[in-house]
Amino acid sequence: MRDYLYTVHQLPSRLIEAAVDQIATLPGIGRRTALRLALSLLRRDPERVHLLAESLIAMRDGVKPCSVCHNLTEEDVCSICLTDSRNKNLICVVEDIRDLLAIENIGNYRGSFHVLGGVISPMDGIGPSDLFISTLIDRISTLDGEAEIIFALPATMEGDTTAFYLFKKLAEFTGVKITSLARGVAVGEALQHADEATLSRSLDNRTIYQA
Amino acid sequence: MRDYLYTVHQLPSRLIEAAVDQIATLPGIGRRTALRLALSLLRRDPERVHLLAESLIAMRDGVKPCSVCHNLTEEDVCSICLTDSRNKNLICVVEDIRDLLAIENIGNYRGSFHVLGGVISPMDGIGPSDLFISTLIDRISTLDGEAEIIFALPATMEGDTTAFYLFKKLAEFTGVKITSLARGVAVGEALQHADEATLSRSLDNRTIYQA
Repeated sequence: MRDYLYTVHQLPSRLIEAAVDQIATLPGIGRRTALRLALSLLRRDPERVHLLAESLIAMRDGVKPCSVCHNLTEEDVCSICLTDSRNKNLICVVEDIRDLLAIENIGNYRGSFHVLGGVISPMDGIGPSDLFISTLIDRISTLDGEAEIIFALPATMEGDTTAFYLFKKLAEFTGVKITSLARGVAVGEALQHADEATLSRSLDNRTIYQA
Repeated sequence: MRDYLYTVHQLPSRLIEAAVDQIATLPGIGRRTALRLALSLLRRDPERVHLLAESLIAMRDGVKPCSVCHNLTEEDVCSICLTDSRNKNLICVVEDIRDLLAIENIGNYRGSFHVLGGVISPMDGIGPSDLFISTLIDRISTLDGEAEIIFALPATMEGDTTAFYLFKKLAEFTGVKITSLARGVAVGEALQHADEATLSRSLDNRTIYQA
């Protein structure tokens, strides 16, 4: 039964087959889902399919990484780096764009970012040289006055390794404070559902109660 | 927390936003998944994104319904309808293309098909006139000699309603046998996991044991 579920049948047209092959290259999309999506496209007006396809091409051709922070942008430098009111001496280091978007979404962070493009992961063959670490160091070395680098990296072995590596690299800079996102019980989360490590960290790093 | 999970943040480029909007029109793909897919496309070589987009356009522009059975084809008539060795007097009626593909995948069905394009569902506003029923009747009326129509419709209220409607419509044809897929315990399924209705049907329609 299982086998049947994951078999994709021979398709009635090479064009459908080619499209299904292409759709199935997307992460998390298997051939069955790809077939479902292809058939749904075939039920649409051709104009709508053209619109979808052209939006993908326009995005890929028009969007590139910001030359400063590696955020995505249509220009050479992204809108966050271009905004004068944002603090250039406060740099939040994130793994990828979605983390940047999550922090931007809070709405009150007024510093800048640096997207590493990954975390150090020997298991996946990702070393420091695969990440945008040298550009971060270059940026920091050109800063005037006091600065703060916030590590907003994932709370995983890889995230911790990356943070530790960066911490060592940045030790040479005097006048640069290095901080990390607080770890603790999530807002709205029941204590009994928090894992031990998190609860322990939240106790160690308890904060002054503010009524 | 839930809200946060389903929020898509303001995106750094209108081109990304447009692509995410388009991807999110696909069935079963929300905006968060669409963003994940868009970011994965941005990490690819532009040529690969062009290839994907062009395969969608080529499929939509090049594939159309078979004028006989409503299967998909690049020609006017599909390869199943064109194959002489397939029995034109044996027509398997299915809800949609994926059901046709599933039956083709068995490998030993040598009849033809008729794709209804849906099932009668008053709840969804789908009536008999929304389905390819008149073309089925036209096909049957041109058949010479004995014929058999196999209902391979879903085992749901809507499938049963559609089968009953077709059965009434086809009653006028003498010499046309109407059959339906056997309902019963699935091959490899434990009896104790079969639902009551299925088990009851499998008992009523028990077959001669063949060793």
